[in-house]
Amino acid sequence: MRDCFEVRDYDAAGRIGELTVPRAGVTVETPALLPVINPHLQTIAPSELEREFGAEMLITNGYIFYGSDEYRERALDEGLHDLLDFSGAIMTDSGSFQLAEYGDIDVDTPEILQFQHDIGSDIGTPVDIPTPPDASREQATEELAETETALEVAEGVDVGEMLVNAPIQGSTHLDLREAAAAHAYTTDLDVFPVGAVVPLLNDYRYDDMVDVVAAAKRGLGADAPVHLFGAGHPMMFALAVAVGCDLFDSAAYALYARDDRYLTVRGTKQLADIDYFPCSCPVCTSHEPSDVRERADDERETLLARHNLHVTYAELRRVKQAIREGTLLDLVDERARSHPTMLDGYRAMLEYVDQLEETDPVRKDSFFHTSAESARRPEVLRHHERLDRLPVDGEEILLSEGAKNRGFDATWRLKPPFGPFPRHLSKTYPLTAQVPDRLSREAYEAAADGIARLVDANPGTAFTVAHFDWPESALARLPELPLVDLTEEDAN
Amino acid sequence: MRDCFEVRDYDAAGRIGELTVPRAGVTVETPALLPVINPHLQTIAPSELEREFGAEMLITNGYIFYGSDEYRERALDEGLHDLLDFSGAIMTDSGSFQLAEYGDIDVDTPEILQFQHDIGSDIGTPVDIPTPPDASREQATEELAETETALEVAEGVDVGEMLVNAPIQGSTHLDLREAAAAHAYTTDLDVFPVGAVVPLLNDYRYDDMVDVVAAAKRGLGADAPVHLFGAGHPMMFALAVAVGCDLFDSAAYALYARDDRYLTVRGTKQLADIDYFPCSCPVCTSHEPSDVRERADDERETLLARHNLHVTYAELRRVKQAIREGTLLDLVDERARSHPTMLDGYRAMLEYVDQLEETDPVRKDSFFHTSAESARRPEVLRHHERLDRLPVDGEEILLSEGAKNRGFDATWRLKPPFGPFPRHLSKTYPLTAQVPDRLSREAYEAAADGIARLVDANPGTAFTVAHFDWPESALARLPELPLVDLTEEDAN
Repeated sequence: MRDCFEVRDYDAAGRIGELTVPRAGVTVETPALLPVINPHLQTIAPSELEREFGAEMLITNGYIFYGSDEYRERALDEGLHDLLDFSGAIMTDSGSFQLAEYGDIDVDTPEILQFQHDIGSDIGTPVDIPTPPDASREQATEELAETETALEVAEGVDVGEMLVNAPIQGSTHLDLREAAAAHAYTTDLDVFPVGAVVPLLNDYRYDDMVDVVAAAKRGLGADAPVHLFGAGHPMMFALAVAVGCDLFDSAAYALYARDDRYLTVRGTKQLADIDYFPCSCPVCTSHEPSDVRERADDERETLLARHNLHVTYAELRRVKQAIREGTLLDLVDERARSHPTMLDGYRAMLEYVDQLEETDPVRKDSFFHTSAESARRPEVLRHHERLDRLPVDGEEILLSEGAKNRGFDATWRLKPPFGPFPRHLSKTYPLTAQVPDRLSREAYEAAADGIARLVDANPGTAFTVAHFDWPESALARLPELPLVDLTEEDAN
Repeated sequence: MRDCFEVRDYDAAGRIGELTVPRAGVTVETPALLPVINPHLQTIAPSELEREFGAEMLITNGYIFYGSDEYRERALDEGLHDLLDFSGAIMTDSGSFQLAEYGDIDVDTPEILQFQHDIGSDIGTPVDIPTPPDASREQATEELAETETALEVAEGVDVGEMLVNAPIQGSTHLDLREAAAAHAYTTDLDVFPVGAVVPLLNDYRYDDMVDVVAAAKRGLGADAPVHLFGAGHPMMFALAVAVGCDLFDSAAYALYARDDRYLTVRGTKQLADIDYFPCSCPVCTSHEPSDVRERADDERETLLARHNLHVTYAELRRVKQAIREGTLLDLVDERARSHPTMLDGYRAMLEYVDQLEETDPVRKDSFFHTSAESARRPEVLRHHERLDRLPVDGEEILLSEGAKNRGFDATWRLKPPFGPFPRHLSKTYPLTAQVPDRLSREAYEAAADGIARLVDANPGTAFTVAHFDWPESALARLPELPLVDLTEEDAN
């Protein structure tokens, strides 16, 4: 067990956890957002981030301090906490980003880790190689070997209580990502950033992001805190958390503000295009868009950065509240409607339903069926798996959407998207699901698959299905068995 | 033309409009929310609603003033604006609600209208009969006749510049609702409340709400401002606006607060169940849930009421911004994921796609395909209708998802969910739609329907379809014609 991280609540593969950061003397609740602080360019002071936005952790780049005439000595003398005036946890990056951008940096893992330690970082980072998406397998493999060496070197550096990141690379080669994660997990390093996903996010490749994270998660134990490195847009928090990410960092709140871009959980808007602020934050409830447009550059930037942070932290709280309620997948379903590529991300996530199911709670307060995709939720998979084991209580069993028994040995209920179940389970989650009157075909088809599974598991039993006008596509998935259409019967 | 209302922008059947209220000397932008003010019980003062939340109009019950020892004379002496300290527009109700609740009230339309006028109301209401949902046809018809008489009586009352509501009843009998609306529209009354929908909303019958509103809209002209009377939950604003509602009123913000209920655009929560405030409003960014729970009753109520108002007004701004952007249906699609009954409401709305299409703008900035339901949007219907008229430029035409011409007289593009179109239209809305890689069957089926329509309209032309592995259910909808599966070809 890694003793720096403990999971408190699960929903799908998302979780609320506690990351203990011994050097800072704090425990940070995850999912957490780390605002990115550039010492040269502070839009909002760290003390304000802490006091007003509740930031428990921030991230800054150790390599900028290392190479800065202005800040290097100050950081070594004062330490980052005093220099930045922040009492929470501080994570530092190593310059890997600069390495990827400029091809070379003048420092190696032992030196930069030692430097991060010396300036008082609470979580340091070795020099890994961020291989971009779509790199050749050869490049990804070679660079991953370098990253893995860096992690092993990092293990040997004495950094006292400082936690150390173990970045996971491998580009878009999923087996490499999984192997990289498995390797990182065998080290004694502490936090696991999934690296080089920013190009995916910049290109709205949320499906590839999901693939990469799901692969990394397969290589890691449940006690590994996972950082989606460079990801800070609130639109994708729910999706990324549901696949298993615990930490995010945002430079976006400030960079976007500089550019007159306004974050929402449904995407990004240009300030120039906003007639009405679609937001309830303190900035948006006390200003009109035209007011903000007319402000001087620095004031406008600060107002937008504050708005951007408010929506970002609010979405993080919304995600946490959803985990507590067991409604995280409902939130993901809703966020999937923000953009066609978010829908792709969501549909990609549902392909990993078996991974989500492993940690999905057995009981929740409610299951809302709110889309065709709802039929693919982990709860449906789990019910289907249970159908293999449920004892059948008779030789002739009716599986029925209606109420009448009709002289069978037993009558089971039949409810899309789950399928059949004995009546005594009716009041148990997820069979208590609320479903719309207008169900989509996917729900009936999933129910048909449940019937097929039950029939398969019980070859000696004779089943009959009584349904209300199921669509052809669902009936076609059923094994050969007697059917009663209750709609026709009702009509007679 | 009714000169009190002008539509500025449309999106689907939703609109931004201007309601001119001559007696108040103001023009109110719609969609607008009217906070309900009970003079006996003011959680948040009208002046604060105006100053801090931007309320341009409120509603109070003229009948309460009429029957109040405390307020009757003051209202007659001071007038409502001074008494309530509110400079925007004030609408008054007539006591119809009390009539429905208690079976009798001691006032008739001429008297209560005169009274509303005398206390300085800007928009008054006659005594209509709010027939509840599911009433018998006989009851609904009889009571509607009374309501219609009340409207005719109201026409004859001299109320100066005061506007007058013309409530639309008819219970859940859609033909009665439509006839009631058509009748109300022939009067010279001004604003059109769709009445007695509160029981539908309380029971989460959003599909029936949509049916009722759509029926009323069919009876009204475009210049009729429509008030969804008694509806104030922000979860359903986008849906109700998209079907054509312009005014809402909310007692919920205050009533719910009294009950420790916390509004969100995704439903209502109990304060006791909230661990993290899923909101960015000034209340939620400056308090923890536990802080609020520990406050004294009146403080807690005020904080919750303020939060409830913030989310309510923010959602209204979000709806308006969406109309300006042409993204209202995207927002409806997202909100439909809040609850299974909201999905029913959304799917019910799509059954009126022809009504939505009438006013849907021909050009928008973007079409995001974000769900199976996207295939049923007005833009798809409109494209299909256009396929009847598009000239075909050859005897043998290829409709293709691929790029190759293959020696046909012409090659048209083929894009789900729209179907076929000549290449020169590729850059025009909605054919510029962004669609996910993982399309649902509904999108292919809609495209197949487009093909069928084009083939039907051009019996002399030989069409061939080249597609990438379309699902069976889509191919089954095609007329008899040659098919090329480009996936198989690519594989060879």
